[in-house]
Amino acid sequence: MNVNYPGGIKPCGHPIKAQKRHLESAANRGMGFEEDINETNAYYLEKGLALIYKRPTPINVVKVDYSHGARITQAFFQCQSTTDYNGVYKGHYLDMEAKSSRSKTSFPLNNIAPQQVTHLRAIKKMGGLAFFIINLYALNETYLLDAQYVCDFYEQKPRKSIPVEEIKAHGYLVKEGYRPRYDYLPLIDEHFLK
Amino acid sequence: MNVNYPGGIKPCGHPIKAQKRHLESAANRGMGFEEDINETNAYYLEKGLALIYKRPTPINVVKVDYSHGARITQAFFQCQSTTDYNGVYKGHYLDMEAKSSRSKTSFPLNNIAPQQVTHLRAIKKMGGLAFFIINLYALNETYLLDAQYVCDFYEQKPRKSIPVEEIKAHGYLVKEGYRPRYDYLPLIDEHFLK
Repeated sequence: MNVNYPGGIKPCGHPIKAQKRHLESAANRGMGFEEDINETNAYYLEKGLALIYKRPTPINVVKVDYSHGARITQAFFQCQSTTDYNGVYKGHYLDMEAKSSRSKTSFPLNNIAPQQVTHLRAIKKMGGLAFFIINLYALNETYLLDAQYVCDFYEQKPRKSIPVEEIKAHGYLVKEGYRPRYDYLPLIDEHFLK
Repeated sequence: MNVNYPGGIKPCGHPIKAQKRHLESAANRGMGFEEDINETNAYYLEKGLALIYKRPTPINVVKVDYSHGARITQAFFQCQSTTDYNGVYKGHYLDMEAKSSRSKTSFPLNNIAPQQVTHLRAIKKMGGLAFFIINLYALNETYLLDAQYVCDFYEQKPRKSIPVEEIKAHGYLVKEGYRPRYDYLPLIDEHFLK
């Protein structure tokens, strides 16, 4: 499976043990892309262009020991119910899910949780900007896709994965560089804010 | 102290023990207002008006026991670096901090963390909407204030607290009801989106 679980969060419904094994093998790849997006966003903030936050991993706290400060002694990861990033660009609300895939031919839809589709549809309905930024690791290419397109594909499920040709046809190639690492804002200006 | 710590999060720099005692006494009041805002936002979402999320409390996970699923056995609350709520309204990015105060005369500035001011200033700079929603518990009144005004007061510090008269002069009285509990969106339409 070519899945990126940001922050090591477990996807809903996946077995924990498989998840653990998976995380060990996929950690470097997935985290690398996420870190690059974090760096890109840090650059945008530094330049005063946009403020895009990585959402904290939601955690259910069960027990807290107050004997030496507040130490959480029992807690559980919640299923990630929304997306990796949100923030503000030129006054607009922006929401984004970052995914990395090793496949050379397609992006598997099992990378996406149903509640993420619900969330992104709601954002679009409220007039927000919503995207997937998909790193095709094997091709060394990254695409920005309107969440609308991905959600439609997800729900209509003509296939279990989005073929690379479709990603290229409906997405926008993100320019890679040193700083910012993935310069996705100009694509938003050009294709979504005109 | 009249402080509302959403989600039981500790404010930066405050002693943990005082915090714990404080939380016990203030829990009902603070949580009550926060819950009302959560309900208001749930109502707005249901009506398709806005999608405003409560941010998860950021937690530093130190140890995870995988022997029976993923159980966090050691973790710490991070200082809340941003605000309680953010989301999208009519395409605009919206950021909001909710506070409740028991004081009859003023809103103490020590309710606000310096990094929240930094965060809200950045949001304004990026063109986002940013507010404080302040519940004056003793007066049974709630005001929506532009974060700009509160941040200016915070930084210029003419006083250690914002007098109620100033809140009334610069804020907008939020209409209270059954559903939504605190109907703040019409104030945004009237005063910030015209």
